[in-house]
This record gives sequence, C-alpha cells and structure tokens, in this order.
Amino acid sequence: GIGAPPSAADLKLQFAPFSSALEAGFWHQLTQKKLNDYKLDESPKCIKGYYYNGDPVGLPTRLTLEFSAFDVDAVTPARCCPAVGTLYNTNTLDAFKNIDKRALLEKEAKEMWNAICSGAALKEQSLLSRFILLTFADLKKYHFYYWFCFPALCFPEGIKIIQQPSLLEAVFSPKQVIALQEAYDDLCVTKGNTAVPYFLIKYTDHTVQMAPLEDWESFFTMTKKVTVGFYDPCTLSQHPGWPLRNLLALLANQWGSKLDVVEVLCFRDRTLQGSRSIQHSVVFQIKLPGLSSCPKSVGWEKNAKGAMGPRMVNLSECMDPKRLAESSVDLNLKLMRWRLVPSLDLDKVVSTKCLLLGAGTLGCNVARTLMGWGVRHITFVDNAKISYSNPVRQPLYEFEDCLGGGKSKATAAAERLSKIFPGVNAKGYNMSIPMPGHPVNFSQATLSLAQMDVEQLEKLISEHDVVFLLMDTRESRWLPTVIAASKRKLVVNAALGFDTFVVMRHGLKKPPASRGVDSSPSCSSASSSPSTPAGSAPSVPGSSLFSNIPGDKLGCYFCNDVVAPGDSTRDRTLDQQCTVSRPGLAMIAGALAVELMVSMLQHSEGGYAVASSSDDRMNEPPTSLGLVPHQVLDNYEKEGFDFLSKVFNSSHSFLEDLTGLTLLHQETQAAEAWDISVVKMLLI
Amino acid sequence: GIGAPPSAADLKLQFAPFSSALEAGFWHQLTQKKLNDYKLDESPKCIKGYYYNGDPVGLPTRLTLEFSAFDVDAVTPARCCPAVGTLYNTNTLDAFKNIDKRALLEKEAKEMWNAICSGAALKEQSLLSRFILLTFADLKKYHFYYWFCFPALCFPEGIKIIQQPSLLEAVFSPKQVIALQEAYDDLCVTKGNTAVPYFLIKYTDHTVQMAPLEDWESFFTMTKKVTVGFYDPCTLSQHPGWPLRNLLALLANQWGSKLDVVEVLCFRDRTLQGSRSIQHSVVFQIKLPGLSSCPKSVGWEKNAKGAMGPRMVNLSECMDPKRLAESSVDLNLKLMRWRLVPSLDLDKVVSTKCLLLGAGTLGCNVARTLMGWGVRHITFVDNAKISYSNPVRQPLYEFEDCLGGGKSKATAAAERLSKIFPGVNAKGYNMSIPMPGHPVNFSQATLSLAQMDVEQLEKLISEHDVVFLLMDTRESRWLPTVIAASKRKLVVNAALGFDTFVVMRHGLKKPPASRGVDSSPSCSSASSSPSTPAGSAPSVPGSSLFSNIPGDKLGCYFCNDVVAPGDSTRDRTLDQQCTVSRPGLAMIAGALAVELMVSMLQHSEGGYAVASSSDDRMNEPPTSLGLVPHQVLDNYEKEGFDFLSKVFNSSHSFLEDLTGLTLLHQETQAAEAWDISVVKMLLI
Repeated sequence: GIGAPPSAADLKLQFAPFSSALEAGFWHQLTQKKLNDYKLDESPKCIKGYYYNGDPVGLPTRLTLEFSAFDVDAVTPARCCPAVGTLYNTNTLDAFKNIDKRALLEKEAKEMWNAICSGAALKEQSLLSRFILLTFADLKKYHFYYWFCFPALCFPEGIKIIQQPSLLEAVFSPKQVIALQEAYDDLCVTKGNTAVPYFLIKYTDHTVQMAPLEDWESFFTMTKKVTVGFYDPCTLSQHPGWPLRNLLALLANQWGSKLDVVEVLCFRDRTLQGSRSIQHSVVFQIKLPGLSSCPKSVGWEKNAKGAMGPRMVNLSECMDPKRLAESSVDLNLKLMRWRLVPSLDLDKVVSTKCLLLGAGTLGCNVARTLMGWGVRHITFVDNAKISYSNPVRQPLYEFEDCLGGGKSKATAAAERLSKIFPGVNAKGYNMSIPMPGHPVNFSQATLSLAQMDVEQLEKLISEHDVVFLLMDTRESRWLPTVIAASKRKLVVNAALGFDTFVVMRHGLKKPPASRGVDSSPSCSSASSSPSTPAGSAPSVPGSSLFSNIPGDKLGCYFCNDVVAPGDSTRDRTLDQQCTVSRPGLAMIAGALAVELMVSMLQHSEGGYAVASSSDDRMNEPPTSLGLVPHQVLDNYEKEGFDFLSKVFNSSHSFLEDLTGLTLLHQETQAAEAWDISVVKMLLI
Repeated sequence: GIGAPPSAADLKLQFAPFSSALEAGFWHQLTQKKLNDYKLDESPKCIKGYYYNGDPVGLPTRLTLEFSAFDVDAVTPARCCPAVGTLYNTNTLDAFKNIDKRALLEKEAKEMWNAICSGAALKEQSLLSRFILLTFADLKKYHFYYWFCFPALCFPEGIKIIQQPSLLEAVFSPKQVIALQEAYDDLCVTKGNTAVPYFLIKYTDHTVQMAPLEDWESFFTMTKKVTVGFYDPCTLSQHPGWPLRNLLALLANQWGSKLDVVEVLCFRDRTLQGSRSIQHSVVFQIKLPGLSSCPKSVGWEKNAKGAMGPRMVNLSECMDPKRLAESSVDLNLKLMRWRLVPSLDLDKVVSTKCLLLGAGTLGCNVARTLMGWGVRHITFVDNAKISYSNPVRQPLYEFEDCLGGGKSKATAAAERLSKIFPGVNAKGYNMSIPMPGHPVNFSQATLSLAQMDVEQLEKLISEHDVVFLLMDTRESRWLPTVIAASKRKLVVNAALGFDTFVVMRHGLKKPPASRGVDSSPSCSSASSSPSTPAGSAPSVPGSSLFSNIPGDKLGCYFCNDVVAPGDSTRDRTLDQQCTVSRPGLAMIAGALAVELMVSMLQHSEGGYAVASSSDDRMNEPPTSLGLVPHQVLDNYEKEGFDFLSKVFNSSHSFLEDLTGLTLLHQETQAAEAWDISVVKMLLI
C-alpha cells in the first residue's frame, strides 16, 4: 500500500504499486495452453500484459492480462503500454507453494540491473517494466492460484521529494498543456506507437520539446535540472505509479552523480465524454541519490487480505455450467495426450457421427463409452419401449421411464444423453428395421411403410460416419450391413451370448471406380474424403490370402455363415427372447466396440487398416465365402427396394440361392454322399 | 351361451357353461412356477380349481383358480367343490396358437368316457368335472394368454325336458326343504367333506333320504323315476349348470335303458345376511336317451367378444409398478437357470451385501453391474463431490448433479440406484478413509475425527459381505484391506491404468482358532457361516507352494509390493490426479470385478476357492512376501487405532520396518554390492 502521508520533515517518494488484473479470458487461454501445449512442461513462458494511463480517479493501478497474453506478438490495445513478463505455471499446488519466490524476484531484478548498467534498458525500455506471474491451474475445479510480482529496484535510503506532487494544470499554463500534449503525440508518431512509456522533456513558457529516453545525451545539454516523463497508470494525485521506480534506478545509475534536481511528469491522458485531458497529470521534483551496486528489490503483490500471499480465483462459479461441462470433458480427454498418447487425434474421435442401431443393453453401454470419448453426435434407432427389467442392465433408463407402458427407447436414450452432457447432439428414431424373412407384402400400406423405413435407414446411414450394430436378432443386422457396405461406412458389430460375445468390424470396400456422370453422391463423397485413399489399389503391401487381411478384404457378420438370415423370432421361448447373459458382459462388449472404433479412427489407414495380429490363426486363409455379400451388394445397388422387398418377403432360400449357399449345400451333400460310397467301396 | 328359450314343441335341456375365473394370484404363481420349476418344460401339469353353489343371482357360473391351484393337495375352500384340470403352458405364443385344441378336448373326453364306461367315474366323481387350461405367459410384458375348456359329452339328439325347471320352494313343502337340507348336510358329514358334487335322493311328503352316487344299485330299488342331485354353481332359474352334463352322460351310459324319468335337483345353497337358504334350488324332470358309444364333446370357452378364441389379461396394468420392477429384474436373472446355468444359486448373489469404497468411474460401473446381478444391498463410501467431467464417465451422475459445487458422490450414487430400481437398499457415506502417510495427529480434534472414520469403516465392513476397493490412490486401499482381512470379508480390488487394469480378489484368511471367551463376534459368526469350512484345514487338496494356490494362501494388493503405501497425492500433476485411462476400460474392469465376485460366491468353497488356472505361470511359487500383511494384521488386531494412527502419521519407513521390507531392501543392496565385488574379482 501507500501508507500514511509523509511528514514534512522526511518527504520520501512513495509509489502506487500495480494491481494485477487477470481477465477470465486469460485463465481460459491458460487452460487451453496447459492442456494442449505446455502439458507437463513447467519451464518459464513469455507473456505480455499492458497498462493504461487514462483510468478515471478511484481505479487501482492495474496491469491487465487478457486472453491474448500468451501471444507476445499480439497488438497492444491502442494508447496502452505493453509489459512483458515471465509465467511460471507449476504442475502441482505443492510446487506452486514451494517455489522460491525470493530467488525468482532476485533473478529478475539482477537481470534488470544488468540491463540498466549495460545501457540495454535505455534502448529497450520494456526491460524496465517486467513482471513475474506464478500460477497453478487446478483444471479439475477451475480454481486458479496465482501470485504476481512487479520487480522494482529500491533506493536504500529512499528518494527525497523536493517539490510535492501537484496537478499539471496548477503548474503549466493552458498553452503549455496543449504544447505538451502535442509534443507527446508527435513523439508517439515518431516512435510509431500509440503510447510511449518513458520520455524526456524540455519546456519554456511557450514551448515544449520531447525526446525518447535513449536520446538523453544529445537532448540534455545541461543536467542541473532535468524533466522526465513517464506513462503513468496511477490515478492518485499524490503518488506516481510503479513504472517510475525502475526508470529512476536507471537515471541514478547512468547519470546520478550529475543530476541535481529531477522533475518528473506523471503523464496521465484521460478521455471523458469525448474530451481529452492531460491536465490532471502530476508533476513533482526529487533529489536522486546515486546507485552503483545492485540494490535490493521488492515486488510480490499482496493478496486481497493485504498480506503477502497468493490469490485464488474460482472460475467455476462465474462460468456457464454447460460450457464448464464441455471444458471438463475435454480436459479428461486431453490429459491422455500429455504423457500417454501424445499423437492421439482427439478431433477425429470427437467429430465422428455415430449411428447406434439398437438402444438396449449394448446400445446404452456403447453410447456411454462414446460419451466418455467425447463423441458429440450420437443417434439411436430402436422400436422397443422401456420395460421394467431394463434399467438395471441398460444404463440410460430409470424406473420412471417404465411407467405407463414405457417410453420409447430411442428417444429416451437420446434425452438421457442430454441430461448427462448438455453439449451432446443426440437424437432418437423410434422405427423398425425391415428384416429378411419378415414379410412386408401383406398390403400396399405395409409395403410403403417398409419402403419408408428403408429410406429412413439409408438416410441415417448416409448422415453418419460409423454404424454400430447392437440389435438382439441376427436378421435385423442384415439390411444395415448391406446399406453401410454400399455407402462405405465403418461398421462395428457387437453381439452377446451368455458368457461369450463377438465384437468385430466389417470390411470396408474401396470406393467404386468412377462411373462417370451417374456416380452416386454417397460414393463420390466417399472417394473425396481425405481419410479414404483414392481409387482401389490393386494390392495392399503384405496382403495375400495367406497373410494378414487388409480392411477392404475383411468380410461382414454374414460372410462366414452358411445359413442366410431369416425369421429367428418366431417360436422363441422367453429365455431366447431376452438376452440372457452374464450382466457384466454387455459392459465389456459395449466398451470394446467403442475402443475398436477409436483404434480404427486413429489408424492411419482407418477402415482399410490391415487386421494384423500376432495370433497365428490370423494367417489362415479367409474362407472362400468371403465373396458372398458382393452379390447381395450388387443387387441392392442395382435394384434398390425392389430387391430388398424380395428378401424381406422370402424365406432363407432366396438369399441362399442368390449368394450360392444353396449350391454350396448341394455340393456338400453330394460330397458327403460320395464320401460314403468311397467308404463302402473300401469296406467291400 | 344359453340361447333363446325353447319352444313348447321341442323342449331341450340347455346348460349354463362355466366361466373361467382366474385370479391375479394364479398368474403370479404361474409366473413363479414357470421361472423356477417348469422353465422350458411344456409337459401337462395337474392343477386344481373349485366352484361354488352359493353365489347370488346375476353372477356367472364360475370355475375359480387362485394362487393355490398348483398345489393339488391344497384344501378346497369350505362349501366349494374341487375341479381338477390339466395345464398346458406353452413356451411361445406360436405354440399356444398352434396347439391342436380339438385333439386336446377329444383326448380329455375319451378319458372321461372310458372312466364312465368302466365305472371308475362312479367312485371318483371328480373325473366328471375335469378341465383343460391352455396358457402362454409373456413374462416380459406380464401378458397372459389363456383358453379354458370344460369338456362335456354331448347327447346327439339333446335331452328332452318333461317337466320344466321350477324353484324348489314351489315343488317341495317347507318341511321337505328342511329335511333335504339336513339330509345333504348328513351326507357331507358321512363323506367327510363340506360339499358333495353328485348325490341320489328319495323323498316322501315328510322325509328325504340321500345317498352318494356310488350307492346307486343299493339305493334305487325301482328306476322308473329316479331323483338325482348335483352341486350346482349356476344361478339361473331356468337352467342347470355345466357339471350336470357329464353326470347325465354317466347315468345314460350306466342305466339309460332302465330309466324312464330322471328328476334333477340343481342344489343351490345360499347364505345371505346370515340366513341359509336352499329354497332357490331348481328342480326339473327329463327323459334321458341311451348313450352307448363315445359321443362328441364340446367345452372350449368363448372369449369376451363371444367368439371361440383365447383371452388375454395384462397384469402389468394392475400391478404395483415397483413390484413389477422387482419381478422383471428377477425374471432376467432366473432365465439364466433355464438352460445355461441350472445350478446357479441366485439367492447367494442377490442377498450379498456389497460395500463399494469409491463412487467414481469404477464405483459407478461396479454398482451398475451389481444391479444387473440383482444385488439388493449396496453401500457407497466416498468423500468427493461430483464435478463436471464426471457424468460422461461415471454412469450414476448427470449434469444437474454438478451444479452448485456438485453433490456428494456417495449419497448421489445411492439416490441414483433407487431411481434405477426402487427395490434396492442403497446408502451413501460421505466420509474419508484415513491413509498411511497422511498424518492425522495435527490436533486432538483431527485425531478424534480419524478415529471416528476408522470406527465407521470397521462398522461398515462388519455389516457387509464383500468389500470392493475402487479408489484412485494406492494408500487409500490399505486400511480397508487390513480391516477386511481381519474380519474375514471377501475383498475385490480393481484399479485402472491407461490401457491396463488389475482386478483381483484378496486372500481370505481362515477364521482364527477359537480364543475361548474373548473370541470376537465377527470371527465366531464367520466360522458358523455355512459357506465357510469350519476351522483351518491344515492343507487343501492340491495345495503346495508349487501348484495352484488356495484362497486362504492368496495375498492382497500390497503383498507383492516392495514399497509400503505412503502419501502419493502430494505433488501429483493434473494427469496424475485424474484417472487418465481409455474410457472403455472402467466399464470392463468394473464388470469383471463383479463377475469375479459372482464366480467366487458360486464356488463351493467361496473365498477359499483355489486360484486354479491353465496358465502355467500360476504354478510358479508365490513370492515369499506373501506373509507381509500378517504382521500388519496382528498389530491391528492387538493395538487397534493406536497402531493405525502410527501408520497414518508416519512415513513409509514405519510400515516397511514392521513388515521387514526395510531389511529386505538392505539385504538386496548388500547382495548387489556383493555381486559387484564378485564381478570385480573375476575381472582381476
């Protein structure tokens, strides 16, 4: 503080210290820097603040740091003076507490003294207004601990006032005031700046001359009495602001012995209601003692209690809770990149649009894991309602959701995601997925309904990046498998047994060769996607039937099966209708499905990544049935819903005829019959 | 139905059919039987209903089945006639629809006809009032489909009425009515029953004689006109109830040719406002045609629309939703026992009291999985508040829980469990767990607080069966490890890395040998527990240091570590404070922790189960450090909190000295030094 007014007998100059003014934007930017750039790096960082000499009376002498503080090249606001400082951001509160503040200050003061003695500070005056900022950011709580220091070199005996501070208008005539103002503005123009921190003044009753500090030797021919000015952020009429301190140390060191009286102009430049005024600037005279060896230094700011100690700001209280939630979720993810996976491309994960077909046990767990990975776009498709047995196993539903016949799962799941994290973009579609062997040709109405369902599903799959198959029947996975294969979307498929489960990715076909004008929009968009290698390379390095399998050669859920999907829901007993599985299994499979997706997204080849494995079984040749879905795909792409409705309305045999399974079965039987006759012949 | 009144020219007898009256209790009992006993068994089951002849006018002729229907030996309600039937409960709705109803009826009718022809029905008259009940129970929706059949043998030409039905009081004098009532009551006494379905009557103006049906030959000396009575559930004045039909078939087959006129008493026995009345019984006379070969049969009940078809009752609408939730949760679990794990002892799982230390990522996932397993008693301990980053990874919290500084995790988690499943008994304790190296001896107050925390934790561990260690520091696991080991509780420990995790059970020490009078209650209760082998068997089959390890020889989380737990929270950077792990990992580890608990509970030796594995690494000898915790345990059991407070207030060295780790370190260093000197000697 400033203390009691000095007694007449012992008039020593006292300075108004800086008050740190850290805007919320500064802390937000620090948060981002810490999370994304600094991570665990505790080395000192260069930051930049500024101070202003136009504040109205009553405001403290502020040094302001805002969001741009970390960009040292950022333009300082007009008519403000920059101040460059050093940020020490610690990793822990303990480090913050235990750091040697005395040593930090002395190091800074020593450097400043050296710059003064060497004359460097004369040319680079920002060396006179440096600061230290010590911080610890508790990003989990949005608590920021900080301690500012504005190092100032002290005159051991203080500085004696010869003429008490008085307002400029009491000392200068109006003409002089105007001349002073013009001289300052001219200096600014000369220096190419909107504010100059330190300057030299010569004046008569009618004229004012000004020069930059570095022109001292040529400007002052006689030094019995010199006048210096400084850009003063202080608003007190009896005290100069802090930036004067180190200027006086510079003057004392460089010219102390020659100087008799130093007149100081505390230049204050206020614009109120459109009219500019420098009349309230302050002028006083001092006797400057010499200063030859590095003096003591002071500068650590007092806290709000007036004691020497750090300050803390709790930004969580003033932040919008929804934005706070978003930053907090980001935080947990970004921490992965600090030490463990520096190359993790989080944006790729977060921006992935996921379509979850099925909002049951698997769907809920997959959605929860996607939320954990920060995925923002999640869409559910389901046609069921929430029943009383669901909430204990399907972690997006509660007892209340079951009342009155139960809410629709798809929309309830989407609503729950928004309750968990308001920043999510979640939607639910309460719709059925047409299935092979589940006829839709009862009437024109049911056929139209099925066609609408197919179109809706095609639209949804087009609009998303990854399709999760999380249904409870085999045949409901068929249509989305075909559509997603045609649209070249990543497909992750998960299915539960009692204590077994399958989590797999489907093969991702290369985009079709350009068909000229009539190439479908989805295909052309796929081939122009940056993550998709253009064209279909004839061979992937290391790919052969007998080695690892590249992603575009992988099959789908139906590829290795010798029975085409049909109606499996008829005649199912209760335990076949419910997914009877160890309760922990859905969580494990759901989590693995998402981790598989993330691993694919992070792989440089995405869905084309080779399915490599140290497991030797991977080196077995893929089954020759791997080609099965391509007949299906061709027919779907050629005939569209006409083809699909044949599949829905037919028994197994249609798909089995189409895909060659019927022939395979016949050949197998023939082979068996032949085997038997061979055996018989041997017996004879 | 009964149809239009017959014309005078062609008076044929018409019967009021039975209406099935299935009480909610019947369906609940069927649900239990299906889930627990029948499972997938579709074979016919014997069930029992009853009918009553005292209903007021207006009620239909009901055959009632209530919860006791499945217990054929259950006492029939007083003054009611039992009816025995066959339940066909199908596994699927398709089977229910497709079952051959005609064949079921004909089979039953044929058996009845055989019983009539053989005379067996004369002695065992319940064979005349049998029924068929065809059901399908959709236990997921609490929809019950059913179809009743009361098989009746038909007279091809009908039965001609000679004297129209009239009320007893119009035909019998008051004296005769009283005599009839007395005769019936006497017959009941003779038969040792409160109701007799069929009986024979002889009467004069002043007397009434009655005899059981089987006494026909001795009772009726002349058969020109006989009077028979039957216990009539019908309340219509112009029609007899259904039970008469098969009696008439019996009479026609046995004595048809001899009988001229058969007088029928429809015995109805009503008590209204305390006064008994049989006057409203109905009397009529018929001409009975002969019946020599098995006639056609009828009997399938019409549905509510008056058509031949099944009925459906939706019990979910009239059930208490909370009970419905409980049954539904049970359902999913019980289905496991139908096919997959018939020996699964669900009660053992459901009744297990689980203490979850930590309500963070792991705690939430463990609780969810426990709910899926039907565990009803879950207690959380945590001292943290819910922060904005939690809900996307901790599946018991939502955005709302983070507002205003965040709710306490432990209590919020318990509240959420109740919202998921109101039947759960969940509690939360917002408390800290004292930790080694985290001093508590700042003042008497902090010491007392720590002592209270220890006592609370001891109490909680005593009150539970399984303790889950789900915290985020190593040292916080120490105290509960020691207490739970001392109290012989199962401990499941889970901890996360980035893409690694550990899920383990702690060794379960055998109960201490009896200490006589001062044996602690928890120990004596442990040794009297049926799942705990009494005493400490000196050796478990197959147990040795070089083979599989029995449960009581397994160590704990700290056993294999060469550093005692201490304060690891000081100086932790942000990424060390948060659990930075792949988001799917907590779900996997949490699910596995619960599945491990369930597997232990289901093992015949519980926590003493041998840690067997096909993995050869299991056959390596356990480390000699396996004995470490026993010194700790001995000290804890001897000195209690005094010992604990030394641990809390000391650095690593206290525990390391106690457990011999200090010595081990010294010996290791000495050995290394010696190794070096050996190397040097060899070089020389």
